[in-house]
Amino acid sequence: MVVTARPSYSRIRTTLLALRARADVELQLVVAASALLDQYGDVSKFIERDGFVISARVFMLIEGESNLTSAKTTGIGLVELTTVFDNLKPDVVVTIADRYETIATAIAAAYMNIPLAHVQGGEVTGSIDEKVRHAVTKLADVHFVSTPLARERVVRMGELPERVHITGCPSIDIAAEVLAAPALDFDPYVKYGGVGHAPSLATGYVVVMQHPVTTESSQARQQVVETLEATSQLNLPVLWFWPNVDAGSNETSQAIRVFREQGRAERFHFFKNMGSVDFLRLLCQSRCLIGNSSVAIRECSFLGVPTVDIGSRQGGRECAGNVLHVAHQRDEILAAIRTQIAAGRHPSSTLYGDGQTGGRIAALLATLTFSIEKKLPY
Amino acid sequence: MVVTARPSYSRIRTTLLALRARADVELQLVVAASALLDQYGDVSKFIERDGFVISARVFMLIEGESNLTSAKTTGIGLVELTTVFDNLKPDVVVTIADRYETIATAIAAAYMNIPLAHVQGGEVTGSIDEKVRHAVTKLADVHFVSTPLARERVVRMGELPERVHITGCPSIDIAAEVLAAPALDFDPYVKYGGVGHAPSLATGYVVVMQHPVTTESSQARQQVVETLEATSQLNLPVLWFWPNVDAGSNETSQAIRVFREQGRAERFHFFKNMGSVDFLRLLCQSRCLIGNSSVAIRECSFLGVPTVDIGSRQGGRECAGNVLHVAHQRDEILAAIRTQIAAGRHPSSTLYGDGQTGGRIAALLATLTFSIEKKLPY
Amino acid sequence: MVVTARPSYSRIRTTLLALRARADVELQLVVAASALLDQYGDVSKFIERDGFVISARVFMLIEGESNLTSAKTTGIGLVELTTVFDNLKPDVVVTIADRYETIATAIAAAYMNIPLAHVQGGEVTGSIDEKVRHAVTKLADVHFVSTPLARERVVRMGELPERVHITGCPSIDIAAEVLAAPALDFDPYVKYGGVGHAPSLATGYVVVMQHPVTTESSQARQQVVETLEATSQLNLPVLWFWPNVDAGSNETSQAIRVFREQGRAERFHFFKNMGSVDFLRLLCQSRCLIGNSSVAIRECSFLGVPTVDIGSRQGGRECAGNVLHVAHQRDEILAAIRTQIAAGRHPSSTLYGDGQTGGRIAALLATLTFSIEKKLPY
Amino acid sequence: MVVTARPSYSRIRTTLLALRARADVELQLVVAASALLDQYGDVSKFIERDGFVISARVFMLIEGESNLTSAKTTGIGLVELTTVFDNLKPDVVVTIADRYETIATAIAAAYMNIPLAHVQGGEVTGSIDEKVRHAVTKLADVHFVSTPLARERVVRMGELPERVHITGCPSIDIAAEVLAAPALDFDPYVKYGGVGHAPSLATGYVVVMQHPVTTESSQARQQVVETLEATSQLNLPVLWFWPNVDAGSNETSQAIRVFREQGRAERFHFFKNMGSVDFLRLLCQSRCLIGNSSVAIRECSFLGVPTVDIGSRQGGRECAGNVLHVAHQRDEILAAIRTQIAAGRHPSSTLYGDGQTGGRIAALLATLTFSIEKKLPY
Repeated sequence: MVVTARPSYSRIRTTLLALRARADVELQLVVAASALLDQYGDVSKFIERDGFVISARVFMLIEGESNLTSAKTTGIGLVELTTVFDNLKPDVVVTIADRYETIATAIAAAYMNIPLAHVQGGEVTGSIDEKVRHAVTKLADVHFVSTPLARERVVRMGELPERVHITGCPSIDIAAEVLAAPALDFDPYVKYGGVGHAPSLATGYVVVMQHPVTTESSQARQQVVETLEATSQLNLPVLWFWPNVDAGSNETSQAIRVFREQGRAERFHFFKNMGSVDFLRLLCQSRCLIGNSSVAIRECSFLGVPTVDIGSRQGGRECAGNVLHVAHQRDEILAAIRTQIAAGRHPSSTLYGDGQTGGRIAALLATLTFSIEKKLPY
Repeated sequence: MVVTARPSYSRIRTTLLALRARADVELQLVVAASALLDQYGDVSKFIERDGFVISARVFMLIEGESNLTSAKTTGIGLVELTTVFDNLKPDVVVTIADRYETIATAIAAAYMNIPLAHVQGGEVTGSIDEKVRHAVTKLADVHFVSTPLARERVVRMGELPERVHITGCPSIDIAAEVLAAPALDFDPYVKYGGVGHAPSLATGYVVVMQHPVTTESSQARQQVVETLEATSQLNLPVLWFWPNVDAGSNETSQAIRVFREQGRAERFHFFKNMGSVDFLRLLCQSRCLIGNSSVAIRECSFLGVPTVDIGSRQGGRECAGNVLHVAHQRDEILAAIRTQIAAGRHPSSTLYGDGQTGGRIAALLATLTFSIEKKLPY
Repeated sequence: MVVTARPSYSRIRTTLLALRARADVELQLVVAASALLDQYGDVSKFIERDGFVISARVFMLIEGESNLTSAKTTGIGLVELTTVFDNLKPDVVVTIADRYETIATAIAAAYMNIPLAHVQGGEVTGSIDEKVRHAVTKLADVHFVSTPLARERVVRMGELPERVHITGCPSIDIAAEVLAAPALDFDPYVKYGGVGHAPSLATGYVVVMQHPVTTESSQARQQVVETLEATSQLNLPVLWFWPNVDAGSNETSQAIRVFREQGRAERFHFFKNMGSVDFLRLLCQSRCLIGNSSVAIRECSFLGVPTVDIGSRQGGRECAGNVLHVAHQRDEILAAIRTQIAAGRHPSSTLYGDGQTGGRIAALLATLTFSIEKKLPY
Repeated sequence: MVVTARPSYSRIRTTLLALRARADVELQLVVAASALLDQYGDVSKFIERDGFVISARVFMLIEGESNLTSAKTTGIGLVELTTVFDNLKPDVVVTIADRYETIATAIAAAYMNIPLAHVQGGEVTGSIDEKVRHAVTKLADVHFVSTPLARERVVRMGELPERVHITGCPSIDIAAEVLAAPALDFDPYVKYGGVGHAPSLATGYVVVMQHPVTTESSQARQQVVETLEATSQLNLPVLWFWPNVDAGSNETSQAIRVFREQGRAERFHFFKNMGSVDFLRLLCQSRCLIGNSSVAIRECSFLGVPTVDIGSRQGGRECAGNVLHVAHQRDEILAAIRTQIAAGRHPSSTLYGDGQTGGRIAALLATLTFSIEKKLPY
């Protein structure tokens, strides 16, 4: 199991817990890339707090946060993960979703004749994630997908139907825990620090999580400015989460810094990271989630949190009724937020899972027989 | 255009000539991996003899010839090609076929938002090539395929039909030149050296070209022994070509060395490399081509040369009437060779192209408008 | 000429200007590592503003800023610089001083049989710089040193006397320009931005530049806290420059952030970078330079600026009368600053050069005959 | 302890045995580069046969055997060894001698603040080894040298006298074992295979071991031709060992192949590798050792075997009376061989050690207190 970023760990955590609980599986965890770095929320600390042993750590992120450094980082990762897999000799390697560096995990496993399981294939978004996700599907030997539509897509791409399992999305497992006990039982400012003002959350707040879009990296700065302008018009506190490491995240950070230096961030607070359960509780109690994170589509559909999805990043994903799509345009964004706040909570949807995904994936990993041979069946 | 191995250059040569002849295209050629190494037939010499300028050379092959070193080599290649593309700033990158290291070219281009053209997608073989080929398809933005069936497969995998062009296989262009003037106008021993005895070719000969199969690398040695045993039963000279760099090629080389040391290679001569036209003339005049090279399926279908295809490596490729498939079993191999020698030359087939592919690809590269955005259409 | 960091460019700039002015030399400039990164002051912009053409750019910095990532970054740099040198085919490679990644330049040149010139060998400091500097000396073929003592040390280490040239330190060239026209002809806040308050500089100010010490990286945070505490006791504005990328620079940044969040940075302003001439003018007009930068020892000796050198980083360097050494202890630091402010400007010293170094190095590079052969003479 | 090549293991073997025998030391062995590769004599097999556990294996050799690939290989090694050391967390790292890739071990340890012990510093040779050896000395924290002269040189280079220990050369330990029981108790052809004819060894034989010189790589081929021509004039069997991986070893191999193809190798047999004890027994019984291996200077001085040292590679090493130096010139080589054969065995010299070095190094490693801080003392 290779974890390369904060959200990857959140999603796969219940699977890891379920694997650890089984006597018939030995779990080896490799933590790499931004998952090790403090400035992006060193998730290895959370992993160890959960009691997992990390078998290997791989620093591989080349500084510069551009398309060029994404490619180089992937190359370094491939060189190093090859050595790691050679030492650990796993029976199966699991890779999650579609971040750019996950293809390094996939290639290392495929070339070394180690069966590769891919979680969350068959989804449609856009951006470089789209190419990465489907290329990983073609390198993988078994697929754990979220929805029936995702399964259909993976099969149409030529994967054998018996190797594609609808498990639901593992991230819904945490959402289910949270929905069962949704109260905000901590003070986010005290527990997670961050920078900026600390407006009272008593009368409601919104959350923003906006990542740069890699195929539009030249527009990254203007895109975040539009969201800053829109949310600054609200009469509510804005809790803003820093983006992942991606081409363009430097521009995002700069836009935010300028906004703060201008003294316009009175009602804004900026967080780097949050434990996944705490984060979902924060969302659960919010009036609206704004940005382009897949959390808005996925976990929030189960939680029933109204969300405003901006731009092309999530374009093509299956959505429940809790999502409004808008362009990177401040007026459009503001109007959508107001509509969503007025509408209030939505009913819970099981589109992306029922909360039992982790156990389901763990059972499949423990009991399936893997084959590394495949051929396009058409 | 990135060339990483001897056969890749043979295949793409007429495309390069056609590109050079156009005023509306600037051609940049990157030569990497085994294409630079003497022991695998330093093809950069042939490239420069053809008058092409090499824009960058990348030594990236990690020694060891195993699945592990294939993965590492790909990682090094990705790191270095990223820098190369950053310096050359190409408008489009072309990658060829399905060797393991071609995915480094594909990822570097895709991540850097450079349109990627893939030649020879949509074919079906087996082995790691199968995974590599289709993963590259999912990373590529435009596809130049050999046959209507290949086009159908690429479209079924989710590529937009308007981006998939049937150009034929560029390797048939050279075959067409050769078929127009098939006489063996050189002495292979004198012109290409190599090692071993030099039996007279006057009364006919066979050619062997057998690569290790990466997903069966533990059996590489026995597989070549079977072919050695079968061909040593023939009463004809055997012209044997050393394999490409791949997991398992070390084992192949060793098996051959032992066979020679035993003094059993009286009628055998071993070549490292040959200019592509000379090589096809040699095939054209041979009684039979034996092994698992795609040349047997592709160029030989056009040339009408009878071939014996051994094992799983080419399994799934579309074949014309010139191919007999057998297992890695010496008696089966020998019987098939005798059948083919008895049958003699087959009629020329245009299954893989009509000899005009290079010009067709060059024209498409020069005139198409590329988009790096894509989404699965289903 | 390989430039990997901001201060390296400052130091070598007059040499580059002198090389460009000569007809008998072709200058190729490679910019790499933190010299390309915005967060450490993208010096490539200053380089291009000075009219130099950059022959190659190499992103090589692995994120994480630890001893581990320094080593990895050096490895990546070595792989990439090898390819760069193979393409550029320089007659001689020049590397500057002793930053950790400079050894990658040195090894690439030495192993490829390219003569290597080293600037600023033979100095004594401590920390990992000490090991790097002398190892580079043993890899280099010609040495351009700052002082007679430095020359003596290089010769005692076994280098041939005729290959060790006292050129003075190139950084003094800029100091000489500045001392000829020392007025602060710009507003630092307006021209360079940065963050923090903007106290009036009319009645004097101090400058702080403090780098983490790599062999003491676990104490990096406390060391910067001591300096923050000491300087916060002054009744003067504090102009603070962010550190270079080094193991420990993350801790430095965090300590500063906490200090700012506590609202204690009323008289502090934080800069990322400054043109070298502007920077020296700023120093020239300051009451005192505080920290552990070599600028305090070197340029400030020529400028006569009083400096307080903290801790072990510069330990062992030859010093003129302008330097007071203290430990990482707030009271000691504060007392020394007060002593220096009371004493005022010192006379200009030529210990590190006379301002003509760039032309001297350029002339040597243009006219020397290099040999890559050497043997310890004792 | 990092082993990167066949001769490194031979030299350090008694130290490893002595370390394993101590209760106060935990031994971790990293095997890398050509030490893992079959074509250069996979020494990891011998290591495991000796009962050592290999903690990590690092494939890092870039194919191509040129100065360029030496530099790249070192870069890859540095990236990977960093990760290895981060996982193993050694208290001290030991590196041996002066092969080009050993500097990767040295940098990884030095940059990660792990004490570095260097074996065989302070010797003088020429070629790139000279630069590597002394650069590693400047990176190392403790030195185990062979002779008093070597100690004096290391101290003159600026190392603290108390950190430089005369241990003798560890390779003499095996020579001492062999000299105590010198009979050739095995048939080299049967036990080690190799290629070529198998002339009877009953009436005496000579041994050749000739490496390419990296700073003269363009002459590698001619240099080996001279030795082939000289030894072919002898009326004795010639047992020839293939060279290490180095820039130029490809040319060496080719020259040998051509010589064999010409049918001129009637009295020659070619070995890839041999267990170190067997190898020294073979030398001990030979009439003369010819080439440029350091074995001729070192082990053979203790064994009293007459040797002919060709060319510049060992130039500058201290020699006992058993060595004759000649240029790469066939007549000169032949005359020297004849002189040495006529003279017969020399008395045993303890110039390079007394046979107790391994235990001495092991005791020092176990009991010394290491410091990673150093400063030039002059």
